[in-house]
Amino acid sequence: MRKFEHKDLLGMEQLSVEDIELILDTAESLKEISTRDIKKVPTLRGKSVINFFYEPSTRTRTSFEMAAKRLSADTVSLSASGSSMVKGETLVDTARNLQAMNPDLIVLRHSSSGAPHLLARELKAGIINAGDGINEHPTQALLDLYTIREKKGKIKGLKVAIIGDISHSRVARSNIIGLTRMGAEVTVSGPPTMIPVDIETLGVRVVHDPVEAVKKKDVIMLLRMQLERQSKALFPGLREYASFFGLSMDVMKGAKDDVIVMHPGPMNRGVEITSEVADGPYSVILDQVTNGVAVRMAILYLLIGGSKE
Amino acid sequence: MRKFEHKDLLGMEQLSVEDIELILDTAESLKEISTRDIKKVPTLRGKSVINFFYEPSTRTRTSFEMAAKRLSADTVSLSASGSSMVKGETLVDTARNLQAMNPDLIVLRHSSSGAPHLLARELKAGIINAGDGINEHPTQALLDLYTIREKKGKIKGLKVAIIGDISHSRVARSNIIGLTRMGAEVTVSGPPTMIPVDIETLGVRVVHDPVEAVKKKDVIMLLRMQLERQSKALFPGLREYASFFGLSMDVMKGAKDDVIVMHPGPMNRGVEITSEVADGPYSVILDQVTNGVAVRMAILYLLIGGSKE
Amino acid sequence: MRKFEHKDLLGMEQLSVEDIELILDTAESLKEISTRDIKKVPTLRGKSVINFFYEPSTRTRTSFEMAAKRLSADTVSLSASGSSMVKGETLVDTARNLQAMNPDLIVLRHSSSGAPHLLARELKAGIINAGDGINEHPTQALLDLYTIREKKGKIKGLKVAIIGDISHSRVARSNIIGLTRMGAEVTVSGPPTMIPVDIETLGVRVVHDPVEAVKKKDVIMLLRMQLERQSKALFPGLREYASFFGLSMDVMKGAKDDVIVMHPGPMNRGVEITSEVADGPYSVILDQVTNGVAVRMAILYLLIGGSKE
Repeated sequence: MRKFEHKDLLGMEQLSVEDIELILDTAESLKEISTRDIKKVPTLRGKSVINFFYEPSTRTRTSFEMAAKRLSADTVSLSASGSSMVKGETLVDTARNLQAMNPDLIVLRHSSSGAPHLLARELKAGIINAGDGINEHPTQALLDLYTIREKKGKIKGLKVAIIGDISHSRVARSNIIGLTRMGAEVTVSGPPTMIPVDIETLGVRVVHDPVEAVKKKDVIMLLRMQLERQSKALFPGLREYASFFGLSMDVMKGAKDDVIVMHPGPMNRGVEITSEVADGPYSVILDQVTNGVAVRMAILYLLIGGSKE
Repeated sequence: MRKFEHKDLLGMEQLSVEDIELILDTAESLKEISTRDIKKVPTLRGKSVINFFYEPSTRTRTSFEMAAKRLSADTVSLSASGSSMVKGETLVDTARNLQAMNPDLIVLRHSSSGAPHLLARELKAGIINAGDGINEHPTQALLDLYTIREKKGKIKGLKVAIIGDISHSRVARSNIIGLTRMGAEVTVSGPPTMIPVDIETLGVRVVHDPVEAVKKKDVIMLLRMQLERQSKALFPGLREYASFFGLSMDVMKGAKDDVIVMHPGPMNRGVEITSEVADGPYSVILDQVTNGVAVRMAILYLLIGGSKE
Repeated sequence: MRKFEHKDLLGMEQLSVEDIELILDTAESLKEISTRDIKKVPTLRGKSVINFFYEPSTRTRTSFEMAAKRLSADTVSLSASGSSMVKGETLVDTARNLQAMNPDLIVLRHSSSGAPHLLARELKAGIINAGDGINEHPTQALLDLYTIREKKGKIKGLKVAIIGDISHSRVARSNIIGLTRMGAEVTVSGPPTMIPVDIETLGVRVVHDPVEAVKKKDVIMLLRMQLERQSKALFPGLREYASFFGLSMDVMKGAKDDVIVMHPGPMNRGVEITSEVADGPYSVILDQVTNGVAVRMAILYLLIGGSKE
């Protein structure tokens, strides 16, 4: 019998190898619910989950909402635009108010790094970080780890390349922490302006040439070009980026024969990935989305449904 | 025992007389649920319905949501503004992502004609067209047919006038297909610029003078002046339209004594209809809304709840 | 056995002392549900509640949604932006359409005073006023009365000061009516431009000096400075207001030793209240929020769940 000893899920940083394995194993046992004729179990009946998204999101919010409903939890969704935020209230005051309504969990997406950590200290309710600034996006990393383990049978010892704007990606950061912790070898690649100078301290290798970076890799993980977050100065021109770093069948030909290609979505087709690769036999991009629901069900369950026996 | 042999509801075009009768009969048996003290049956428990509305809508979205909840299905609502659309993802990619979360049905409203057909080909989930551009709005036509049958006891042989901007109305198009298929005689009326030149090929008569058009009719169906969709050139002036085509008690006096007046809403009072008519004894406009919930319950049930026995 | 003989909750104006006591007693018996492990009872299963908010709101909408879900009612949320309003339909027509879908209750927030009263006359469904213009916000007053009774054991005979923009506050108006009806003595304070000239006809005293106003009070109730609703002319300058009327430990030192401080939220820290007071031992601001869910559960229950026995 293993237990998940956390009130919150704030980042991969806080999770031990055992925690990660517990989440993935739990997700594995819950995944099949979404393929049933009746996609619902009463496990979290009477629990309240608040989805609080300060940044727009289709897939993550819908994924959390589906996960909660398939476990029979009640959900309330708030967005910044319809909220007290427009009336000038601070995040902490809004959160304390939500807390006063006795939710079991608050799922928070916020543009400020550290926002969920602040709430976790203030509130009795569990906080799930659904993406905070350029810091972490742990449920994305967990569903990526799940997908890798599902496709490869293991994570330890695998060679993974992550390509894109490493500096500004919370997905990259959470995956680097999770993958290295689970024993994978991580190589990052991207334009020099998009690779943090001290990135090697996280235990990864830097290879600027993407053709070189993907060589003999088991997994290629692409990042979304987040045009909305780039400062013009850092950005080397979309067409130039696409022609050099965009993953085409040509770029990936040095990878292992059974390589898998991942992308957190939404994709910019023709920028970081060609349609041939996105829709091709190596792509597991839609598996990631399917696994996202299972992983989020697992996290909801482990945080508020009791420990796994 | 009759069966509904469709994965999707894309348009009236695809429905046979038997399909339409099956939907109306099913709606008839489900309508009473909404008048119960406990307005809920467990029929679709554990089914997931995604409402994806790219255009604003109160009545249609609420009607679908109510219909789903009264059958105990889980619903998730997405609008274009809070979605990946703002991040530049294509409709098909967004839809594939939603599919990967294993919904049973996606209800789509989209400004592009044919958008639901595109998704229906791509996705395993059933697609319900809740209005696509100027093409079709089949659930509106079905609730209109239901209302006519309920009030008149039959559809076959009835004389129906449809008045308004026939060219740009998906409601008109779906109703023309449905009414003619069910054996009604349809006359359309409106300014010459708002009647397609080849409309007679759909089996309808054109009578430009509205007074003439409504003569001896059993049903008068008005269309909403969709000011937001008119090009200035086509539009003959609101006041002029209202004075000539707006349905007043005076205009409708040549209709049958037991004529019914229908409108899909939202009404522009004083434009296509006077308040005297809208709120008068011939109006069945609010019955249409009530029947909309029953018809949508029937469609949800037939698409994902199994066949009717 | 007492009964709640109202179809709607429009304002404190309509409620007798017995009505108010029945609501508070019912809330008291329902409050404990929100602290259970399974925060849900089947009382309102199969009931439909529509939350229709024309003005942004986090706390009130979330509170109503939580309250409905904890009683197992189905909820549908509409906001003005995603609605037929943008298509020019009148409020009454939109409401009649919603009525036609057979909801049990419509919770309405609207910028026009009297909007819920208009709907209550038109519709069969119960209407709950969740704030109408500068008229009333009865559920706020009821949760305030609940909180006072909970903390003080009674309401009758208590001395209450209300400080802020009395003229433009629906919270003030509802509380003045409720408090005086329940036998409390109410003093109002604020800049002369923010006190209606005929306010004494409501049975309250006016004391412009806030230090004087709070003297020997059992309860200090602050109002939110609603900057968005002030005309520039009335507003004496934020800094000036804060320094004179903002509640600091210094201002409140003449109050009773066991005074409680209330605020309907969202707070403007440093304007109408200092952080020291807001987070200090006299503050019951978060209790108000917790009690809000219980009071709204009580109102939903009394309006559509049958009488209390």
